[in-house]
Amino acid sequence: MLCFENDYSEGAHEKVLKRLIETNMEQLPGYGTDRYSESAKEKIRAACGCPDADIYFLTGGTQTNQTVISSILDSHEGVVAAETGHIAAHEAGAIEWTGHKVLTLPQEDGKISAGDLETYLNTFYKDANHEHMVFPGMVYISHPTEYGTLYTKGELAELSAVCSEYHIPLYLDGARLGYALAAKETDVTLKDVAEYCDVFYIGGTKAGALCGEAVVFTKADTPLYFVTKVKQRGALLAKGRLTGVQFDALFTDGLYLEIGKNAIDTADELKRILRENGYEFYIDSPTNQIFVVLENTQMEKLREQVVFSFWEKKDDTHTVVRFATSWATKMEDVKKLAELLSRGRNILSGIGKNSPDDKALCNK
Amino acid sequence: MLCFENDYSEGAHEKVLKRLIETNMEQLPGYGTDRYSESAKEKIRAACGCPDADIYFLTGGTQTNQTVISSILDSHEGVVAAETGHIAAHEAGAIEWTGHKVLTLPQEDGKISAGDLETYLNTFYKDANHEHMVFPGMVYISHPTEYGTLYTKGELAELSAVCSEYHIPLYLDGARLGYALAAKETDVTLKDVAEYCDVFYIGGTKAGALCGEAVVFTKADTPLYFVTKVKQRGALLAKGRLTGVQFDALFTDGLYLEIGKNAIDTADELKRILRENGYEFYIDSPTNQIFVVLENTQMEKLREQVVFSFWEKKDDTHTVVRFATSWATKMEDVKKLAELLSRGRNILSGIGKNSPDDKALCNK
Amino acid sequence: MLCFENDYSEGAHEKVLKRLIETNMEQLPGYGTDRYSESAKEKIRAACGCPDADIYFLTGGTQTNQTVISSILDSHEGVVAAETGHIAAHEAGAIEWTGHKVLTLPQEDGKISAGDLETYLNTFYKDANHEHMVFPGMVYISHPTEYGTLYTKGELAELSAVCSEYHIPLYLDGARLGYALAAKETDVTLKDVAEYCDVFYIGGTKAGALCGEAVVFTKADTPLYFVTKVKQRGALLAKGRLTGVQFDALFTDGLYLEIGKNAIDTADELKRILRENGYEFYIDSPTNQIFVVLENTQMEKLREQVVFSFWEKKDDTHTVVRFATSWATKMEDVKKLAELLSRGRNILSGIGKNSPDDKALCNK
Amino acid sequence: MLCFENDYSEGAHEKVLKRLIETNMEQLPGYGTDRYSESAKEKIRAACGCPDADIYFLTGGTQTNQTVISSILDSHEGVVAAETGHIAAHEAGAIEWTGHKVLTLPQEDGKISAGDLETYLNTFYKDANHEHMVFPGMVYISHPTEYGTLYTKGELAELSAVCSEYHIPLYLDGARLGYALAAKETDVTLKDVAEYCDVFYIGGTKAGALCGEAVVFTKADTPLYFVTKVKQRGALLAKGRLTGVQFDALFTDGLYLEIGKNAIDTADELKRILRENGYEFYIDSPTNQIFVVLENTQMEKLREQVVFSFWEKKDDTHTVVRFATSWATKMEDVKKLAELLSRGRNILSGIGKNSPDDKALCNK
Repeated sequence: MLCFENDYSEGAHEKVLKRLIETNMEQLPGYGTDRYSESAKEKIRAACGCPDADIYFLTGGTQTNQTVISSILDSHEGVVAAETGHIAAHEAGAIEWTGHKVLTLPQEDGKISAGDLETYLNTFYKDANHEHMVFPGMVYISHPTEYGTLYTKGELAELSAVCSEYHIPLYLDGARLGYALAAKETDVTLKDVAEYCDVFYIGGTKAGALCGEAVVFTKADTPLYFVTKVKQRGALLAKGRLTGVQFDALFTDGLYLEIGKNAIDTADELKRILRENGYEFYIDSPTNQIFVVLENTQMEKLREQVVFSFWEKKDDTHTVVRFATSWATKMEDVKKLAELLSRGRNILSGIGKNSPDDKALCNK
Repeated sequence: MLCFENDYSEGAHEKVLKRLIETNMEQLPGYGTDRYSESAKEKIRAACGCPDADIYFLTGGTQTNQTVISSILDSHEGVVAAETGHIAAHEAGAIEWTGHKVLTLPQEDGKISAGDLETYLNTFYKDANHEHMVFPGMVYISHPTEYGTLYTKGELAELSAVCSEYHIPLYLDGARLGYALAAKETDVTLKDVAEYCDVFYIGGTKAGALCGEAVVFTKADTPLYFVTKVKQRGALLAKGRLTGVQFDALFTDGLYLEIGKNAIDTADELKRILRENGYEFYIDSPTNQIFVVLENTQMEKLREQVVFSFWEKKDDTHTVVRFATSWATKMEDVKKLAELLSRGRNILSGIGKNSPDDKALCNK
Repeated sequence: MLCFENDYSEGAHEKVLKRLIETNMEQLPGYGTDRYSESAKEKIRAACGCPDADIYFLTGGTQTNQTVISSILDSHEGVVAAETGHIAAHEAGAIEWTGHKVLTLPQEDGKISAGDLETYLNTFYKDANHEHMVFPGMVYISHPTEYGTLYTKGELAELSAVCSEYHIPLYLDGARLGYALAAKETDVTLKDVAEYCDVFYIGGTKAGALCGEAVVFTKADTPLYFVTKVKQRGALLAKGRLTGVQFDALFTDGLYLEIGKNAIDTADELKRILRENGYEFYIDSPTNQIFVVLENTQMEKLREQVVFSFWEKKDDTHTVVRFATSWATKMEDVKKLAELLSRGRNILSGIGKNSPDDKALCNK
Repeated sequence: MLCFENDYSEGAHEKVLKRLIETNMEQLPGYGTDRYSESAKEKIRAACGCPDADIYFLTGGTQTNQTVISSILDSHEGVVAAETGHIAAHEAGAIEWTGHKVLTLPQEDGKISAGDLETYLNTFYKDANHEHMVFPGMVYISHPTEYGTLYTKGELAELSAVCSEYHIPLYLDGARLGYALAAKETDVTLKDVAEYCDVFYIGGTKAGALCGEAVVFTKADTPLYFVTKVKQRGALLAKGRLTGVQFDALFTDGLYLEIGKNAIDTADELKRILRENGYEFYIDSPTNQIFVVLENTQMEKLREQVVFSFWEKKDDTHTVVRFATSWATKMEDVKKLAELLSRGRNILSGIGKNSPDDKALCNK
């Protein structure tokens, strides 16, 4: 069975695992005060070009969004996000659970525009009734977005400028940031992210770690007593070393970017083959998530040999599916998938012909 | 430096780590639906003698308490706990953060009594104003308690009976359950815990895992859509394998109890030596936490060679400190600590004599 | 100055005030247990044709929505509403403040359709990821809507049927219910509302009371310990008589419907005149809120003599405004407003003519 | 039947009601922006000697405590209060519902001491684990307390000094402030309260109003967008005039103090008689709540003619009960109660004598 279901199917990258093994029996203090956490923070500060940044390690993406957002917002405030933003749609109401509304903007390819944001903020403050409404207290974007798309440096700069004008922080969800940074068609570096965002997180869970996300407050303006707030939200690991050691490994010798590169290379190869075979792309993603339209019969057959994600129904006979690559994806598996997709394509064109080969595939 | 600071200073038990390494590159589905999580659940059900129990893996203790308690309680209800209970004192208000009051009972050696509980519940319902008060919706106990003490089987049965009478669940925080089960002076088995509690958790973080706690709903009456609630509270790991694999290892060939045994054996040896040397125990704990009264000068000297925890001031010249052993504690380290304590004792009796040996110790 | 700003500009209807005065010095028990509250409940049960309904009095609309919704929903659930619903837009995030998401549906004239609701619910449960999303736990509608429009009996029946199919309650916000019931173009009676809704409230604040809303659980399935939940949300009046006496008056001798009638009669007259004068209606509302498009210059002139509400910008030269009538609106004031509107119209058509009369108006 | 059950048994003081009647048909803007609310604020500022104070009107005591406390505290903070404080015991967990813990101090006669507060704060910050605990973010006191007792000016000054030292606000719950100010044995004026507290509220519900409490931020440092926060908590009245007009009346010509005086005079007379008849006081309260020990048989007989409150069981044969006077209590009712108590006393001393008079009383 081939697996292109997501980018968190394997455990940890071997270099990450190696460091966990090497440090396993060291006696270290808890709650993120160990030397590996400190070392990881220093390396991340350097990689971000933010020598003064405050850095904290949390365990997962939803937890990080929930903790950061609810620690920054005042109680009368909500967070602005694309209507397709992860916090708006797929985190089980984790933000509302903390008392805050997600204020949604229209999106294009998963992205919000500075223009729409400016209009929203301007309209809000001009509304005579705005004191009866939820104040926009910060802006959330994801990079890559939930559709694998990327903001350009210019777009980030514009969003950042609007946020500055309205004195609200810009927060970037980098659950898959490694795959954004390694994309071929991007002009955004980690330093750019750090420059334009007030706070963001570097995703570990989907990029080589067993678990872990690194939150970066680029302007060293962490909410007061953030550690207590993390604890209060159930997000403080006793063995902080678990995330500290992993991020220390990820930010040693450029491993985090190297990890991203494998995902991009394998995704690009898969896209090349799909394009050659005439597949329709649902969206043009430059990162590790590929959204393709499959004919339903073919999709069902493919399921017998490949694990992938249902995305949405396109029409009565077609479905949008997602193939994801990762740091762990092997090029040979991409080739096997390519072959299946290519054969599937032929089978479908030949439906009704009952060739013995088709049977063979079906019976597998 | 000797480390007796706590029971989470090292990484994972070698057998746990081994399983993580062996399974690392397997491609597994996320969110706890992998086969190792399933296998671990089966093994835990068997160990608990609860073939129908619902089991879920979470990451840490505060997170587990917060998620379980806030999922069980209705909004007008609070949780009854000892005033020294972890949720009442040392979880940064994680329960209140979810909207629920911790209703405290007096404690003795960290334990609440069935009598006090009965009186509390009876008084509450007899109070004409009780509709203006927080309803007691469940009962929280820890075993071992925050003082390392243990409930007897009879005490658990009594607490369970009172809870049944008032139709509220009994919840046991087993952050250190492994050390309770391995204690020499206990008549409580894992099956007893499962029998008397409606829900409890088996602690992994402090007993051999990198992270992880296993929640057991013994009567298969998990709150509706618990997985969604876990997600909403930021507590659902994408790579559920991380906890699944570890608990699968912990419940293979009795490892969890074996882990407990090492902590108890080393703690018992340490207690024996302390007793021999005439140390005063702050509390008589049968598990892996030892609370001892030290003279302040001795304590300061000891700090130069041993890491341990400050517990509380006893009087102007004495302090209560805690030494903790764990699955990872080496008997040779216990012997080294014993020697230091023994020498420290002599030094103290000889204060003012200025023997050269004293100096040597001080200068280390 | 004429006032058509809203329907809560005056104090209480004279008959309501009279009862408050008459009962003022009676010594009554608190928290809604007085005999006037009981009497009011009996009268409301009779008017609703629900002899077993549970009834509670709260103080205001946002408070009532917040208390009812947060008491009904389980923590993983949200409330479905029109994107223009009061809870979605103009209650300062009062629902999210209690931890629950408002799940929005598209609206037409402020209403949601059974078809859209069915599609939403069906799609939700078919989504393989729905356990990572907020569950739709109840449905909120307002009647009249925020645009003054009304559901038909057929539409209510359809919405109710969809809710029943999915086992979620239908909740109706009746902040202006009195004006809905008195509308000429409606086939919905109070008994219909009680039949099709699981819970709804009868608005007092905007229909003759100083404050107060009556919540009706039509199926006598009030959430457990609702009074405690009301208290916990800061919504329990010590002098429950204040709302009890008022609702007792409102439901004596059909006063509540009579109150509605005056608002409708005056609104209808105003609409007739506006129509005669060729004004453009933004929406066709059969109740007491009238949304009209004014030319900006005219609007500014009108402001000098009339208080009304800005609704939204229509284009660069036109604005949508709202005139509201109420139980207290005098027909003579409608006539004065009509004259101003009629003259304003002429002025505008005659801009540039500089007639002395126009000046007079402008200079006021 | 005589009623000494509480101080909110009647409606509004006649002068308050008169103003409501006089202003009833005036058309006024909503949400507290009307001229009566403004006038009331000016009068309160003058009475407090705080020309710059920010003032807001809310509806009830629990609502006010909940809104003020949850608007001031950061999420990692709790509020310090006496273990008998209303927020700690009798508000159905309204503070915890907003996510904040009530941190309790021991009390004497319902009061906390500056010494205990200082010790608590000092111990907290010295605790090495305090980042894992709830931070004390403000201090709550009630004046009069739940036992009717009063702080002295010196005690308020001391509490204020400790709060200043730790940079946390002192908040005073003045649900019955009118009765505190009118007490004969007090050196605390309204200006003193305003000087020593950062925020407090002047209770209307229990002192002459139908509903309403006036929150005073003495240093004009209201939490940002407080009106939005009030709305979000369901506490913003559409007809703000309801509270505005009432407080305008209460602070015209010293009515608020006059109201208090009647309660104190009647309470003092009742206490005099009780003392004469040798009753045991449970607590020595200088305000309008009188706590007396009754023999159970006598208590049951008294219940047939008087409504009063059960407070707590004293021993198997005695009970503590509360008699409350108010602005509305008539001296003639006090005399009737005195007679009953005096006769009851004799009856009891004569139990077993079976005098015909006893029978008469029993049969009433």
